[in-house]
Amino acid sequence: MENRNIYTDLALEEREKFEDDVEVKGVRFEENREEDLKMLTTLVEILNRRGEKAMGKPKGKYVTMESRLLREPEKNMQEQFAKRLSGNLREILKEERLKTILIVGLGNAEATPDALGPKVAEKIVVGEGIYCLAPGVLAQTGMETYSIIKGVVEEINPDIIIVIDSLASRNLRRVTTTIQLTDTGITPGSGIGNHRKGINYETLNKKVIAIGVPMVVSGATIVNDTMEKLLGILARAKSPGTLTGIFEAYSSEEKYQLFEELLSEDTEQAFVTPKDVDEIVENLSVIISMALNDFCKEQVLCGKTPSYNEL
Amino acid sequence: MENRNIYTDLALEEREKFEDDVEVKGVRFEENREEDLKMLTTLVEILNRRGEKAMGKPKGKYVTMESRLLREPEKNMQEQFAKRLSGNLREILKEERLKTILIVGLGNAEATPDALGPKVAEKIVVGEGIYCLAPGVLAQTGMETYSIIKGVVEEINPDIIIVIDSLASRNLRRVTTTIQLTDTGITPGSGIGNHRKGINYETLNKKVIAIGVPMVVSGATIVNDTMEKLLGILARAKSPGTLTGIFEAYSSEEKYQLFEELLSEDTEQAFVTPKDVDEIVENLSVIISMALNDFCKEQVLCGKTPSYNEL
Amino acid sequence: MENRNIYTDLALEEREKFEDDVEVKGVRFEENREEDLKMLTTLVEILNRRGEKAMGKPKGKYVTMESRLLREPEKNMQEQFAKRLSGNLREILKEERLKTILIVGLGNAEATPDALGPKVAEKIVVGEGIYCLAPGVLAQTGMETYSIIKGVVEEINPDIIIVIDSLASRNLRRVTTTIQLTDTGITPGSGIGNHRKGINYETLNKKVIAIGVPMVVSGATIVNDTMEKLLGILARAKSPGTLTGIFEAYSSEEKYQLFEELLSEDTEQAFVTPKDVDEIVENLSVIISMALNDFCKEQVLCGKTPSYNEL
Amino acid sequence: MENRNIYTDLALEEREKFEDDVEVKGVRFEENREEDLKMLTTLVEILNRRGEKAMGKPKGKYVTMESRLLREPEKNMQEQFAKRLSGNLREILKEERLKTILIVGLGNAEATPDALGPKVAEKIVVGEGIYCLAPGVLAQTGMETYSIIKGVVEEINPDIIIVIDSLASRNLRRVTTTIQLTDTGITPGSGIGNHRKGINYETLNKKVIAIGVPMVVSGATIVNDTMEKLLGILARAKSPGTLTGIFEAYSSEEKYQLFEELLSEDTEQAFVTPKDVDEIVENLSVIISMALNDFCKEQVLCGKTPSYNEL
Repeated sequence: MENRNIYTDLALEEREKFEDDVEVKGVRFEENREEDLKMLTTLVEILNRRGEKAMGKPKGKYVTMESRLLREPEKNMQEQFAKRLSGNLREILKEERLKTILIVGLGNAEATPDALGPKVAEKIVVGEGIYCLAPGVLAQTGMETYSIIKGVVEEINPDIIIVIDSLASRNLRRVTTTIQLTDTGITPGSGIGNHRKGINYETLNKKVIAIGVPMVVSGATIVNDTMEKLLGILARAKSPGTLTGIFEAYSSEEKYQLFEELLSEDTEQAFVTPKDVDEIVENLSVIISMALNDFCKEQVLCGKTPSYNEL
Repeated sequence: MENRNIYTDLALEEREKFEDDVEVKGVRFEENREEDLKMLTTLVEILNRRGEKAMGKPKGKYVTMESRLLREPEKNMQEQFAKRLSGNLREILKEERLKTILIVGLGNAEATPDALGPKVAEKIVVGEGIYCLAPGVLAQTGMETYSIIKGVVEEINPDIIIVIDSLASRNLRRVTTTIQLTDTGITPGSGIGNHRKGINYETLNKKVIAIGVPMVVSGATIVNDTMEKLLGILARAKSPGTLTGIFEAYSSEEKYQLFEELLSEDTEQAFVTPKDVDEIVENLSVIISMALNDFCKEQVLCGKTPSYNEL
Repeated sequence: MENRNIYTDLALEEREKFEDDVEVKGVRFEENREEDLKMLTTLVEILNRRGEKAMGKPKGKYVTMESRLLREPEKNMQEQFAKRLSGNLREILKEERLKTILIVGLGNAEATPDALGPKVAEKIVVGEGIYCLAPGVLAQTGMETYSIIKGVVEEINPDIIIVIDSLASRNLRRVTTTIQLTDTGITPGSGIGNHRKGINYETLNKKVIAIGVPMVVSGATIVNDTMEKLLGILARAKSPGTLTGIFEAYSSEEKYQLFEELLSEDTEQAFVTPKDVDEIVENLSVIISMALNDFCKEQVLCGKTPSYNEL
Repeated sequence: MENRNIYTDLALEEREKFEDDVEVKGVRFEENREEDLKMLTTLVEILNRRGEKAMGKPKGKYVTMESRLLREPEKNMQEQFAKRLSGNLREILKEERLKTILIVGLGNAEATPDALGPKVAEKIVVGEGIYCLAPGVLAQTGMETYSIIKGVVEEINPDIIIVIDSLASRNLRRVTTTIQLTDTGITPGSGIGNHRKGINYETLNKKVIAIGVPMVVSGATIVNDTMEKLLGILARAKSPGTLTGIFEAYSSEEKYQLFEELLSEDTEQAFVTPKDVDEIVENLSVIISMALNDFCKEQVLCGKTPSYNEL
């Protein structure tokens, strides 16, 4: 029995459910370490239906850049990370020739941990062939984000869509220290916002690249983790006067029942985020917009770049 | 020879080019004064092609509410003006039965005099049947505002669109003291933003109501007005030693040449706006959003209100 | 052994550590229920040193207004709550005659749950005798908030200071549903911001009223609550094959050790806040600014109101 | 008779009232051109009372950097200008040893052309010895900006104060294309904000460096310039049938009377600013904050940097 309250947007964290040395069928996995940036870059590639099932994520590539230095607002550092990010973007899109790019900053500018998308959007240099949108969230517009994007895509017909979004992680340690880049777009249930309909090739008929940073974990995750840790500690502790642990390990179903008892409605409706999230989100928006501005300029300058008005 | 640099978005100001007692063919004109609000409400109705030609604006109704008290941030006053505005809105739409309404706040949230639309948008209470969008401007998105609206309209298929926009006036006295309401939408060349393609029935196939407030006059207008005033003064002044004016009145072509000499490029690219525009724009956004929230709630509650997702 | 990570700014929550029917010496306690607003108003008055010790808060009055309807952005509701709040303010200050009032919106405008103070500040109507400041936080200014306020107080010499701040609660249920009003100002260790030096009569030599709303609970609190609940459940559960509970209740010291093991550094540096905190903080800032604008106008209009420039 | 409505904050523009080749007693004047940045740097040094009288500005150094490229949001360009600006700052302060610096971003964040100061402030990296404040304007705080700064200066006792402000120019061409740096601080009557009391050595007993960018010209200036130009054209034009100009040049008193007739109250209360002021102000805030962050880091790292708390 899976605990569906303990959600993650990171393919990497789905991979981590398996033991390190287990080979998950249908999934390719690569790691690369870069010492000076203290960065671990991971590629998870889901190759087929079997991989999709095992991972609970759609087929495609997921590149994850992890480094605690992502939190540092140091200009030179920002440029290094931006360079790696645009490099990964180029890598993931290598066969493509892009003449028009639509960048979409998802999320709510008024809620700090959800403001990454809008903050990137306001730093994008638009122009012929480079378009940018910050559609807001359902609570502001009354409309699903998907509908707004769909409408705009029909009108301007971009070669590709790049969406930026705040994600949810399963692990507070990863929050704001990880950038995930994927060519699978965004799938239902994701993130902390309200994008209930997928924003991906299936729904938009355009390739959708998603760049996401985990900004929160759910309140439920903290409760679950605390429960798991505590049960672990107690199971290892010896019962007074006996040689056995205090109790046998709970089954996953028993654990889920316990969890439901422990989780209040208020906690379920809450999220957990670092105290200095405002500074970090600003810093990350600089890195991501730098990478995108470089990437877009380079792409769009290569080919002829018709305005969508000429279409 | 018309001076096209001296632009106005107000039908009322087009009407004022004619003498007060001249009846303009094809144009109906009504005034109503309300003493306690120090408000003059004017209806200009352009009835046919002849009226369109005379006025240089499309056929339809233009209601203008003028009062210097619109600048006062007094709550009771705000409520009075909001009531009149929603009343005029109801009047202009009387035959309609609206189940879904799309409100669009045009303009640039980062430029104070152009921020009226976005500031109204953030105060709209959305919900089933009430949708709201602040699409930004060309310099932020790379896209014409029209394209974004068109796309969204196709997706959610509203019964009506209400756009809010900052306007340009010919007269600094009207800036921030006038609200114009029209059922003709927005036509090219308008306002201070970049809505180069019309946002109206012709382009969207939906009725478009536009609510606008003049927030600026162009730099060119100030130059033109100063020139006109000065030439008037000089023409009336006696030449030394003669009984005639200093010079004969200039022809309109000569005036235009003078004007071109007087207008620098920097002035042409500038606008003129009141020093306290930030407070006034906030105040006006409260009035307009109050009126819209009342109007929308009332409309949408009357009929069945399907979500656009069910369409 | 007290768990100092489990912090609360609410006197009410300190009171709740004691059984309901226990009379805490040196503390007066009153409750009042108002059905139509679903509101419980509580007065905790700490009368003397004995009360201070028991409660861990300084001597003075603490009025708490609790209602889940505080989250509702309904205008009529907002006005009702504002009226109660200004009434409580009048009550707590009844003997005073105020001619000059300094309002200070504490907190970080860029971090949504900490933005309450700045958001109230921007809605205050200033004027002769009514001054307002949003000093920012240490991370923005490099200065302790206290220093900025101290300096301004020396310059303008107000009769009273009213500070608005985001608080930390021990209980997620109270977050955004409670307003605390106290005449004791702000004492070290409080809130989610960085006001390490007290902002109160002792430090400023002026009466300081603090209006606070709990916007977060600490990550540590969620861990602690989960641990407590789980230990409670396990202690009540029967051990397999025996009649006794799984284990004896832990001592508070043992619990604290467990807690330390369970709490990661990341969780310690995190806070927990409702998903829709952006809308709620806006709503609360409307209520509080309404109350303050009414109160200030009434006070300052009563007496002669010299500008501080004349002092 | 001087036209006091035609105000400038730029010493350079005061200098321009004199013919180029006239040597103004008590004023030193130097120019330096840099081709690649298309920049003209001017030093106006007012040496004594005589110079003060001639220029209508206090004794001290005024460095003006002029380049239309200041409007370009190109990163490499920004870095070049920032380098020049911090260089000029170092030059003007060469004898000083600074251990604590207070940066003050003057102006109104809500009014785009007045938002330069606050926008710089939010980009300053604060820390030990580097403090930063954005005090807002009178209409927001009810207090003179001077009072707030005075209070904070008393508390933290900085070695120097650097204020950033939006200025008024006499010439629209200079708006947003000029940075003025002066060691005389800010003197009454300046700028577009409300700093009625000087912010300078005389009032604060600390050296005050002011960095300003003209963001507006007054409405009155446009009227005056148009009048002057038009009178010039007419005076040069031949009267029909005669060989003399249409009229003799007006005396400065006659001109002032004409000007008063031409200037409406609304125009007097208005300012003129470029249409794309929002983008330019953002760009300039990047340049100035870059320069200040470099300068402050370098200064404060050199000496021992006590926190003001230890004082």
